Amino acid sequence: MRLVEELMRAQADEHHPELRAALHHLLGAGGKRIRPTLVLLVGNMLGADPNKLITLAAAVELLHTATLVHDDLIDGALLRRGNPTLNARWTPAATVLTGDFVFARAAKLAAETDCLPLMRLFAETLAIIVNGELTQLFTSRGIASRENYNQRIYAKTASLFEMSARAAAMISPVDEASIEALRNYGYQVGMAFQIVDDILDFTGEQAEVGKPVGSDLLHGLITLPTLHYIENHPSDPDVSLLLNGNYSLEKERMFRLVQSIRQSEAISQSLSEAGKYVDEALGTLADMPAGIEKQSLEDLARYIVDRRL
Amino acid sequence: MRLVEELMRAQADEHHPELRAALHHLLGAGGKRIRPTLVLLVGNMLGADPNKLITLAAAVELLHTATLVHDDLIDGALLRRGNPTLNARWTPAATVLTGDFVFARAAKLAAETDCLPLMRLFAETLAIIVNGELTQLFTSRGIASRENYNQRIYAKTASLFEMSARAAAMISPVDEASIEALRNYGYQVGMAFQIVDDILDFTGEQAEVGKPVGSDLLHGLITLPTLHYIENHPSDPDVSLLLNGNYSLEKERMFRLVQSIRQSEAISQSLSEAGKYVDEALGTLADMPAGIEKQSLEDLARYIVDRRL
Repeated sequence: MRLVEELMRAQADEHHPELRAALHHLLGAGGKRIRPTLVLLVGNMLGADPNKLITLAAAVELLHTATLVHDDLIDGALLRRGNPTLNARWTPAATVLTGDFVFARAAKLAAETDCLPLMRLFAETLAIIVNGELTQLFTSRGIASRENYNQRIYAKTASLFEMSARAAAMISPVDEASIEALRNYGYQVGMAFQIVDDILDFTGEQAEVGKPVGSDLLHGLITLPTLHYIENHPSDPDVSLLLNGNYSLEKERMFRLVQSIRQSEAISQSLSEAGKYVDEALGTLADMPAGIEKQSLEDLARYIVDRRL
Repeated sequence: MRLVEELMRAQADEHHPELRAALHHLLGAGGKRIRPTLVLLVGNMLGADPNKLITLAAAVELLHTATLVHDDLIDGALLRRGNPTLNARWTPAATVLTGDFVFARAAKLAAETDCLPLMRLFAETLAIIVNGELTQLFTSRGIASRENYNQRIYAKTASLFEMSARAAAMISPVDEASIEALRNYGYQVGMAFQIVDDILDFTGEQAEVGKPVGSDLLHGLITLPTLHYIENHPSDPDVSLLLNGNYSLEKERMFRLVQSIRQSEAISQSLSEAGKYVDEALGTLADMPAGIEKQSLEDLARYIVDRRL
């Protein structure tokens, strides 16, 4: 992982000093590096070439970083993980271009893995992520269906987890069935990861999550805990705020709704759904060829639901 | 070229209807399609597979389109080629994401040419273009050196022309020397193209160029005609406006300076420099293997300087 960090930071070395500073700021802001970890664990398990693996891990994390830079611009977010966003310090122009530059370097690193199907996958995953964001932008806020929610968290998170595990398997000496099993593992783990993130938005402390408790809902974004709460309490008068789209007008009742959800069984129900995805992920590992050491991927899948809960 | 257009327009077919509308708007706004023309002419000359060539041509034009979308956002431009920009009709968020989506589709098409060195070149070219824009953003306006100007027009324009010709040669059955000759051809033609664009900014009519006469200079951007004018008339009091960075405060004197440049020998001097690049481009064609029909690339190079003059 240290080599992945070094490779990521070296990407702006020959370019404008301001750009180098921006990249260091972005990478220094932290993040769990869970996507490159997934790449390294899958590839190590399957015997991939370490250099290609490090290159792929850096490409995946930079792709993720680029989408965050543009996201923060779009949301007008001033903080991410408790640190100032690029958006808070720079002009929109510099932020757009820095995101583009990070995309370009991610694509270059992906190309250096010398695997054409991987390049196609990389480009397709970027299209899925961006199309998901556009759909969210064009879809009016308010009640979302379970189906919308699943599509949204796939585009936003699970697609890149899926790509990370699949791409690591693609550059490893394994057959198509193993690549498919690991694609599925990445998908399941990614869905679980986003559900847990959405739970933490309700249950976490501001200092931990880096944003106010319930901030998704306060911005009109319906996630799994809210979907469960609506199913369980259809007649809660505060729920009607969401149905008629007046969430932005009634701050106090919205804060109350966040507290209601936080203290309700919707949290454990959501957590149990995340657990099902993790079980599926563990199940895909059962199909791995004999002699492959699966422990670290089992640990990673369990960590996804256990973190900070 | 009709097939290239169809392929470009099909890129949003499975996605959000608003995105499809945006892509059609962007592509419908016209443009000379000179980059895909360059791809097709080079590849046809060298005997490339027509399907790969069409795919590459669409990838190159979409990459160009994506950079224009983000550029217009950065400049706050409301018109391009006399048509409303996406920026004028949409929110910045939708514009950023549409640009990202078009990048993703360009990368996917590039990957479909099944040529790994081409993917690397594609990603590197995007990095060069974006780094050039960042440099321009971070560099204060006012007097630019000839060296700055050359670097800027390389990053902005010639890099993608260079890539177009080189990539078309890379997917053709030719040796390294021919690929290098065509890379150089693309570079020379691209430099000439941008110089002529910068001349047309002074000499063209607003209806033709789609923006006011002298608009680069009025925005503080120094291009080749201005550099020549400054060398020829160092004591013109209006030139001092540029030297002390007060160009934005003295509109009337700036308009007068635009007229002075427009009527000066700086125009023919700049045109003669563009002509030198075209001569170099024609020279690179002399090295092509015997039996290759070079007429169309000779015509293209001459068209670069002759258009609308």
